[in-house]
Amino acid sequence: MSGTVYLVGAGPGAADLLTLRAARLLGEADIVFHDALVPPEILALAPRAEKLAVGKRSGRRSTAQRFINKRLADAARKYRVVVRLKGGDPLLFGRAQEEIDFLRAQGIAVEVVPGVTAALAAGADLGVSLTQRGLARSVAFVTPRAGANEAPSTWLQAALAADTVVIYMGAGEAAAIAHALITAGKRPATPVAVIENASIEARIAPGTLAELPALAAQLSGGPALIVLGEVLRNAASATQRATPRTRLAR
Amino acid sequence: MSGTVYLVGAGPGAADLLTLRAARLLGEADIVFHDALVPPEILALAPRAEKLAVGKRSGRRSTAQRFINKRLADAARKYRVVVRLKGGDPLLFGRAQEEIDFLRAQGIAVEVVPGVTAALAAGADLGVSLTQRGLARSVAFVTPRAGANEAPSTWLQAALAADTVVIYMGAGEAAAIAHALITAGKRPATPVAVIENASIEARIAPGTLAELPALAAQLSGGPALIVLGEVLRNAASATQRATPRTRLAR
Repeated sequence: MSGTVYLVGAGPGAADLLTLRAARLLGEADIVFHDALVPPEILALAPRAEKLAVGKRSGRRSTAQRFINKRLADAARKYRVVVRLKGGDPLLFGRAQEEIDFLRAQGIAVEVVPGVTAALAAGADLGVSLTQRGLARSVAFVTPRAGANEAPSTWLQAALAADTVVIYMGAGEAAAIAHALITAGKRPATPVAVIENASIEARIAPGTLAELPALAAQLSGGPALIVLGEVLRNAASATQRATPRTRLAR
Repeated sequence: MSGTVYLVGAGPGAADLLTLRAARLLGEADIVFHDALVPPEILALAPRAEKLAVGKRSGRRSTAQRFINKRLADAARKYRVVVRLKGGDPLLFGRAQEEIDFLRAQGIAVEVVPGVTAALAAGADLGVSLTQRGLARSVAFVTPRAGANEAPSTWLQAALAADTVVIYMGAGEAAAIAHALITAGKRPATPVAVIENASIEARIAPGTLAELPALAAQLSGGPALIVLGEVLRNAASATQRATPRTRLAR
């Protein structure tokens, strides 16, 4: 007899962009394994729970995935409600599948609680529909980050073909990304915005694909997304009308 | 002096997949303009508010967009908290941009509250990461539905290029979609799942792209998504392990 592991999306950053279900599960949780970037206001919703930071963060020491898997299974054998709290949506650009497959292979119940992914928070901060009628019938979420045994280039085709593109975990490689896209045929004048800390005091740097390296250089180290596409054509004016919580990087 | 119009995502269907912010704004709302598909449990969170169904639903009578815009502006001149409640995320495959642009042109404050989009709820129901490491570095959300003055084919390029594809508002045209994708070069054996009522008693029909028309024919009229890609390779087994809330269509 074991507990359930809930893979829960913590949303894009702002504590009140958590779902009601996620908040309830945090309140019931016996133990919470969380990504490094989950804000303290969200962890505070789990007053009963032991809290363990296990998430990976680019360029920092992190816990090996196999060790996370094993700790989740051990916790499920000991506790009723085990929460694995992941930034954004738990199934997008994380290693949730490895956790799900490992736990289910051990006969442990797993449930996934979807969350608001950062791209949609960025759209909200920009006041721009990522699929604006007349301009975009497709939006692709991609990452240039590849696993150890993967070809690194599969993201590029999707980024070229989609009307709107949101690049996750790419701001640190902005120069290489701009070069790859322009070399592959994306127009240097394609409108771009770099959004740091979407949903929490977002910094927005609008420009063009050719300017992307300079835009990314304005970031101050928070999690950032790159958005590309004609829907941003009016992004400069859009950001000037952004909500008071949103700061302009320039 | 006018109120604020909040464009609020109602999430994928399950009432507790609403965000905390959305729930708070509904509690404060003076008036709520909502899509036809927003469930009554969510509307019940706005006890003080007048509630008006204005959303469009495929194949049914709906309110003209210009009329919705005007009603939102009129309400903002009369009330403090006006909520425009949209299924899923408010900025994805809706006409939010027209509402935002119209209201801002009139000097009315607009804020967007992002939500959990149906694709992520479908991933949760499937227990499948849409961007599983080693299989997918990109996911595209597309719709074959085009506006009156749009070329209908822009979605196809993105659907061909992305590792994982989620097709919104396409289940009614499943045969045409399968034909278009296969003709353009997508393998007929590409794994597919059709998910109806994601997050609320989801029905999942797994199969291949060649089988897509037959899978869509099993639907019972609820909102449905089509998911394609190698991440679904194990979807048949995944759905057998799905949460008890999830029913299998076959």
